[in-house]
Amino acid sequence: MPKVAIFMGSLSDEANVRPCADVLESLGISYAFTVTSAHRTPERTEKLVDELEKSGCEVFICAAGMAAHLAGAVAARTIKPVIGIPVTASSLSGMDALLSTVMMPPGFPVATVALDKAGARNAAWMAAQILALADRDLAEKIRQARRKLKDDVEKAAASLQQGKS
Amino acid sequence: MPKVAIFMGSLSDEANVRPCADVLESLGISYAFTVTSAHRTPERTEKLVDELEKSGCEVFICAAGMAAHLAGAVAARTIKPVIGIPVTASSLSGMDALLSTVMMPPGFPVATVALDKAGARNAAWMAAQILALADRDLAEKIRQARRKLKDDVEKAAASLQQGKS
Amino acid sequence: MPKVAIFMGSLSDEANVRPCADVLESLGISYAFTVTSAHRTPERTEKLVDELEKSGCEVFICAAGMAAHLAGAVAARTIKPVIGIPVTASSLSGMDALLSTVMMPPGFPVATVALDKAGARNAAWMAAQILALADRDLAEKIRQARRKLKDDVEKAAASLQQGKS
Amino acid sequence: MPKVAIFMGSLSDEANVRPCADVLESLGISYAFTVTSAHRTPERTEKLVDELEKSGCEVFICAAGMAAHLAGAVAARTIKPVIGIPVTASSLSGMDALLSTVMMPPGFPVATVALDKAGARNAAWMAAQILALADRDLAEKIRQARRKLKDDVEKAAASLQQGKS
Amino acid sequence: MPKVAIFMGSLSDEANVRPCADVLESLGISYAFTVTSAHRTPERTEKLVDELEKSGCEVFICAAGMAAHLAGAVAARTIKPVIGIPVTASSLSGMDALLSTVMMPPGFPVATVALDKAGARNAAWMAAQILALADRDLAEKIRQARRKLKDDVEKAAASLQQGKS
Amino acid sequence: MPKVAIFMGSLSDEANVRPCADVLESLGISYAFTVTSAHRTPERTEKLVDELEKSGCEVFICAAGMAAHLAGAVAARTIKPVIGIPVTASSLSGMDALLSTVMMPPGFPVATVALDKAGARNAAWMAAQILALADRDLAEKIRQARRKLKDDVEKAAASLQQGKS
Amino acid sequence: MPKVAIFMGSLSDEANVRPCADVLESLGISYAFTVTSAHRTPERTEKLVDELEKSGCEVFICAAGMAAHLAGAVAARTIKPVIGIPVTASSLSGMDALLSTVMMPPGFPVATVALDKAGARNAAWMAAQILALADRDLAEKIRQARRKLKDDVEKAAASLQQGKS
Amino acid sequence: MPKVAIFMGSLSDEANVRPCADVLESLGISYAFTVTSAHRTPERTEKLVDELEKSGCEVFICAAGMAAHLAGAVAARTIKPVIGIPVTASSLSGMDALLSTVMMPPGFPVATVALDKAGARNAAWMAAQILALADRDLAEKIRQARRKLKDDVEKAAASLQQGKS
Repeated sequence: MPKVAIFMGSLSDEANVRPCADVLESLGISYAFTVTSAHRTPERTEKLVDELEKSGCEVFICAAGMAAHLAGAVAARTIKPVIGIPVTASSLSGMDALLSTVMMPPGFPVATVALDKAGARNAAWMAAQILALADRDLAEKIRQARRKLKDDVEKAAASLQQGKS
Repeated sequence: MPKVAIFMGSLSDEANVRPCADVLESLGISYAFTVTSAHRTPERTEKLVDELEKSGCEVFICAAGMAAHLAGAVAARTIKPVIGIPVTASSLSGMDALLSTVMMPPGFPVATVALDKAGARNAAWMAAQILALADRDLAEKIRQARRKLKDDVEKAAASLQQGKS
Repeated sequence: MPKVAIFMGSLSDEANVRPCADVLESLGISYAFTVTSAHRTPERTEKLVDELEKSGCEVFICAAGMAAHLAGAVAARTIKPVIGIPVTASSLSGMDALLSTVMMPPGFPVATVALDKAGARNAAWMAAQILALADRDLAEKIRQARRKLKDDVEKAAASLQQGKS
Repeated sequence: MPKVAIFMGSLSDEANVRPCADVLESLGISYAFTVTSAHRTPERTEKLVDELEKSGCEVFICAAGMAAHLAGAVAARTIKPVIGIPVTASSLSGMDALLSTVMMPPGFPVATVALDKAGARNAAWMAAQILALADRDLAEKIRQARRKLKDDVEKAAASLQQGKS
Repeated sequence: MPKVAIFMGSLSDEANVRPCADVLESLGISYAFTVTSAHRTPERTEKLVDELEKSGCEVFICAAGMAAHLAGAVAARTIKPVIGIPVTASSLSGMDALLSTVMMPPGFPVATVALDKAGARNAAWMAAQILALADRDLAEKIRQARRKLKDDVEKAAASLQQGKS
Repeated sequence: MPKVAIFMGSLSDEANVRPCADVLESLGISYAFTVTSAHRTPERTEKLVDELEKSGCEVFICAAGMAAHLAGAVAARTIKPVIGIPVTASSLSGMDALLSTVMMPPGFPVATVALDKAGARNAAWMAAQILALADRDLAEKIRQARRKLKDDVEKAAASLQQGKS
Repeated sequence: MPKVAIFMGSLSDEANVRPCADVLESLGISYAFTVTSAHRTPERTEKLVDELEKSGCEVFICAAGMAAHLAGAVAARTIKPVIGIPVTASSLSGMDALLSTVMMPPGFPVATVALDKAGARNAAWMAAQILALADRDLAEKIRQARRKLKDDVEKAAASLQQGKS
Repeated sequence: MPKVAIFMGSLSDEANVRPCADVLESLGISYAFTVTSAHRTPERTEKLVDELEKSGCEVFICAAGMAAHLAGAVAARTIKPVIGIPVTASSLSGMDALLSTVMMPPGFPVATVALDKAGARNAAWMAAQILALADRDLAEKIRQARRKLKDDVEKAAASLQQGKS
């Protein structure tokens, strides 16, 4: 019974989107991860949204490139929060996917994160932060993870110092 | 029994899209002109596409701003040619609508034209050129219209000349 | 005891941000709405986040223009979901605020919505959708509001039809 | 007797444009594929348009990079539908070719598709959809191809599932 | 017998292009100023280029907006220097016209100047500098004009000083 | 004996640049404010730099629009810190001035601030912060000014609160 | 006694600029080719311009990247035509160099060509077209070169045809 | 007792930022070089700023990518001059980091330099120029370094000359 669904518009996005699944996994959040397309399989997309929502899914994460409509199509189908990961998939540096994802009309927000891998990770963090509103253990895990990020900076600083001396 | 359907995502796009209807009217092409939204009324959009297609509509023209998904949603529903008019509707100068409309993934093309009024007119011209493949009278009307555009340039040149002397 | 906090970086952003408060109000969601700046009042910002969080605030909405750091600064302080509204406040068409808000590094997501008024409304909708995960009444209100958006499209279509005949 | 003409402005565009020919071939649509330039060989371009049109060509597809004028030059010569493929051929990420192709003035539309290979495929799909208005067999082939695209998504989803287990 | 030809693609460009004529006039350079379009009147454009070239025209200045092909079309017809003025004529801030004008393929250069009125003036100055290679009097006039530009700066500085005191 | 020089490339930039002088004035920093151009008066520019430097000027602030070379030209002439204010002076939203000012080659830095009025103010603040390294009184004035900025935020927050009740 | 001078701002631009020299060489036009910088060696640049102009140089070609001021600095020093080649030398895809080169203020035009190698070739062609105004043999060589470009297109078309059969 | 602090937001920026340290080293300026993040370690950042400032640090240099807030956060903490190096760290070519760094609101300037390595070097030069206001020996070293940059151009010109002959 996944709490989070990760949809990507094409299997070719996997390298960029995989870190999203990795973060959810590290936090012990159950998730579904599949391929579905706003244009090629609109019915599959709708059916997945309906079924996942019924079975308790609370956050949808959608990754797509170019004219990235997947997050918007899901946002039109559910009132669960939808997070959009724009993926660089043309020569336009991801600007096409970013604007197609973030500039949604009133009433159908897509919570947009950064492009590509950094955004994929942040989509998972945002999903976790939303779920943590009702889950104290998860909130504590997120705080721990942030402490680790902080420690990593200090270790990096130390290693830089050593490299110098 | 409209040959062409014009959909716009919001009534606020009307000033930009009206010239599309005007051109079709000047060419004697029957058309439907309505408001429907990829996000607010996806079912209405699908139903309109299905009904119009059944009643003989051959070209769909879709105008939308921001994360302009309407043309793409229609293109996913029909194999009739879909023409997209990107509309400037945010501070991003229409770049959001342009990229959201034109950068479609393989298999679901949207024939994209210029932004705003110039694009609205050209959407009508493109629809007419497509219909003219099977309609000699319409082809002749298009040729006449082009001759008029040509004459207008010559008249403009003459008026410039006069203004000078 | 506000459930949602709306911060804006400058009083001059009010016209763009006010629709966010209006949507929350229409949904009966309690909120705090204030001015605080990442650069001018970092301590005030931190204090507000801490106090609001303690008193039960569950979602933070931050609006800022130019090098829009406010949402990021709040995201660094809390693990509650932070939604960012980029505001057009220079000649760069809001691209500066959009990129400063959305391109956050891993671990500190900002759920970014569209620029200016459209984004302000969607920040409220996104906050509501997050809160509705634990509030069935609110979920029903959101569904009703969406039905109204749908009805508005049909009314717009009807008025367009009438205008024609 | 080709139904579709594919022009590209330079032999160096071939890798990007070849998928257009491949799609037409897969659909059994006859086509001509050649190199001609708006600037280097304007007379050859005009002659090709005139001859192909006379021999029954119904759709022109033009691919070019940088200040991509080829599609516009062809659009000025014929009232057959002209489809433009912008090609990335400078450091400007194809934005030069995209804007040069899509921003045509009223009366001379170019049906613009996405950049590079994705656009090349979609130019062929759009040409096929236009021809299918008068060709039921072709319409059926396009519908079959779309079913295959749909199946591919489902297969991709299955393979992702397997990779996981 | 004009030495310089100014073509603009549309009468609506006149306000932007007129300063070009004014600068030529101030330098006593004979010029033709007319409207002709790469798409609407390609034959008129070619005929004008041929006739003007035969009658001694040495520099062609072409102003156009959007997918600005006029300068490129003229550059393909003559080996006289062609100067391009990109004009802002869509919501895209003139970036469409700038890239369509400047990114010409090898062999067919367009000497591109700044957007709009500033570019129109500079097109005239560049034409004058080219003609001055064979005209000492004109060279002296250009030098005088530059001295006046210099004096204007000093006067502006003085007026600023006065305003202060 | 001015400590800071403000150069602007054109009198038409005055409205954008004036706030720079106002901030310096409010801090009691002596300054020269004049018009000089990298292209129209390169010698005047060089002479001004040399004279001001000799008379004790410690920071140069240069404001210019379009291909904004003024700051770079001054940076090539002096090793005093040069601050660049990019000014919006074409349809390109100031992106031309921003990139022309900030992307300097190694060895000749221009300390670039934001576009237009906001940048003009910040150029003055940056100049003040540099001078304050050797001037305790000035440092205290800057700290006071920051406290006022902070107070202004709190007053704005209070007025917003009042407007609500 | 070079007729054309090619300046580049840095030796690292050589690969992009060399094709300019090659085209001049192929046309038998004498040229000087050197490195000089607007910022690092402003006096060298001025001296070179003065000496070359005195010895009969008629066209200056300047190539530079980033905040490309070289062409503008030369344009401020001479009334001979100055051609600017923007070079891609940062992660900004050459947009910095393009805008720094083309957006010159009135009175000091830089005839800007395309980015990088394509632009380098066109700078040479433009210089040749300017010189050909007073040199019939050179004009004939340019016409021949254009015929060769035309033949190359036809050969490319033939090779494409062959590759197919 | 470092005079200059170099902060970078992530160890992955080191290759881009190292040249900054190298330039400072070549000028004999003492510096601290460490990793600290606006989001991951805001307290560490504040503590570092306070400690370094107390121990005599006079200039802060901050390098960061994407939504680059580090320089702004430091600028909010100190009235010492803060120099920002935008780093390319996403597919957006560094435009995200550039705008996040330079578009600061009034009162909190960040002296922004070019992207990546070129900017890193210039951040060091700018820091040196600021320190040289109170250090004649350092001023002389900067002048010498500029003479070397000038000599390098002349050597490059000579090597180009040789390569030719």
